[in-house]
Amino acid sequence: MVMDLHGKLASMGLELPAAPKPVAAYVPAVRHDNVIYISGQLPLLAGKLLATGPVPSAVTVEQAQVAARQCVLNALAIVDQMIDGDWSRFGQVIRLGAFVCCETGFTAQHLVANGASELLGELFGKAGHHARAAVGVIALPLGASIEVELAVAVTT
Amino acid sequence: MVMDLHGKLASMGLELPAAPKPVAAYVPAVRHDNVIYISGQLPLLAGKLLATGPVPSAVTVEQAQVAARQCVLNALAIVDQMIDGDWSRFGQVIRLGAFVCCETGFTAQHLVANGASELLGELFGKAGHHARAAVGVIALPLGASIEVELAVAVTT
Amino acid sequence: MVMDLHGKLASMGLELPAAPKPVAAYVPAVRHDNVIYISGQLPLLAGKLLATGPVPSAVTVEQAQVAARQCVLNALAIVDQMIDGDWSRFGQVIRLGAFVCCETGFTAQHLVANGASELLGELFGKAGHHARAAVGVIALPLGASIEVELAVAVTT
Repeated sequence: MVMDLHGKLASMGLELPAAPKPVAAYVPAVRHDNVIYISGQLPLLAGKLLATGPVPSAVTVEQAQVAARQCVLNALAIVDQMIDGDWSRFGQVIRLGAFVCCETGFTAQHLVANGASELLGELFGKAGHHARAAVGVIALPLGASIEVELAVAVTT
Repeated sequence: MVMDLHGKLASMGLELPAAPKPVAAYVPAVRHDNVIYISGQLPLLAGKLLATGPVPSAVTVEQAQVAARQCVLNALAIVDQMIDGDWSRFGQVIRLGAFVCCETGFTAQHLVANGASELLGELFGKAGHHARAAVGVIALPLGASIEVELAVAVTT
Repeated sequence: MVMDLHGKLASMGLELPAAPKPVAAYVPAVRHDNVIYISGQLPLLAGKLLATGPVPSAVTVEQAQVAARQCVLNALAIVDQMIDGDWSRFGQVIRLGAFVCCETGFTAQHLVANGASELLGELFGKAGHHARAAVGVIALPLGASIEVELAVAVTT
């Protein structure tokens, strides 16, 4: 069980961003009972999208994987805020939904989504293993190349 | 906490439709523990779709927002039926999924989805605030421009 | 309540496959409290996809329905593994998400998804009735024509 997520991220050369604000009329996350449902995250870093346009013509699989990882960091920043930075309250990642903006005939949505899934495994070990749906979509908000949503179990 | 949803809607010039029947082999909603999962709703009004075809070529963002709102009204009609019209049993909206039929390069799925999200905020205040994923899809059942699914917490 | 799922399937000329392995960095399913969340399943049978490419140009609605049913069989194989084959622990199907790879203008995603939904109804009766979202997407992992995810309630 990771207790010091910030330290763990730092050891990987990563850090949690400021929790992103939603770009529309909803909230970053809702907790119901012991599950936090996090809104679909775009690969925003310092207010700019890391990747826009469809895979593979506008961005490569590798670039989309980095973007997928950023979506997860943004999601974790929201969880961090909701659990007041106390990661002993983290239980497990339950489900991850990955929507990859792509062209007809692109078949590696699962590899793109691995950018998200593998980070969760590295950070949380078995507690980071999740159910997942990864699909290709025609377009995403703000032109993002990927959107990731998460459901995470926490202790109350 | 809204106790008189029907009165509140009437004051906004809106009303709940008859609960829509599913168009296929599933049910309008399932309750598990204290969560009602509502099937993806199309913008049906009196048996006809309010908006068909992709945004923005076939319908404008504004038209799609109205359609998104209708999806929510249809979902709430189903909740109304499941809680026997007793909105004191309503807890909160947990999650909203918005699938917007659109063309390549359309980037305002979040604005379309706001038609759904803002109605929930107007009706329920903080209890209407939800986690959300809004994505663009190539096509939807019956040619609808939008499909919205909801998860709502209720008391048992 | 179905106690002998394997026998029921056999009477329908069907059988559970070996539980499919995930094709990427996640797990087949996660149980949280009394819900099993199953990862998006592709129509794999004996390691090969039953249907690839978009509906209706590459595969017919009927072929896609058969593929949708295979996705459900794969999902149930995973549930079977998680409940050690003891289907008295099965509660109900809560939610089904169906992502149909299709072309612009295809409007029968719900009919394709019926291949999944109707099998669940045949197998489990009322306990197989579920909330559902069926949408059309531009492309899916490995070129699959359909991906289905499930959430299923079980007793602990």
